[in-house]
Amino acid sequence: MYVLVAYDVDAKRVAKVHKVLKKYLTWTQNSLFEGEITEGLLKQCMAEIATKANPAVDSIYVYRIANPKHIKKVIYGIEKDFESMFL
Amino acid sequence: MYVLVAYDVDAKRVAKVHKVLKKYLTWTQNSLFEGEITEGLLKQCMAEIATKANPAVDSIYVYRIANPKHIKKVIYGIEKDFESMFL
Repeated sequence: MYVLVAYDVDAKRVAKVHKVLKKYLTWTQNSLFEGEITEGLLKQCMAEIATKANPAVDSIYVYRIANPKHIKKVIYGIEKDFESMFL
Repeated sequence: MYVLVAYDVDAKRVAKVHKVLKKYLTWTQNSLFEGEITEGLLKQCMAEIATKANPAVDSIYVYRIANPKHIKKVIYGIEKDFESMFL
């Protein structure tokens, strides 16, 4: 399965949520991650996030695409390699 | 077609790019938009963005899903209504 995960969490929890997502997916930009993941690992990832985020205030949007062939990514402008830029 | 559009542009161009995307799609959170759009309108939207963004520095990621049935959105935490919160 292919997923896109966007988070919108309180500033003081951003680093923690970001760190969990980075374990399972690839950082695309800002608060957006993506990648192939199994159902089991996604469940594990979200369970970890649940220990860091506050569901009363924070939001995590998960877009699931069962078959990666059904999603096509097109980049306008430059493709930034965030991993190497900041980490 | 269903699209997710994430932008990463210089701070001084954020408002302009955001405004163009808002004409064509729904704001989900931060720098992420989504919605159903025709090929023609997406082309028009991207042409407008091209007049605002700087392709040497900025990035616009467009994820195209031909059939909206192939994408499933799951929200953990709260679903924020950004339109009414800030606009």
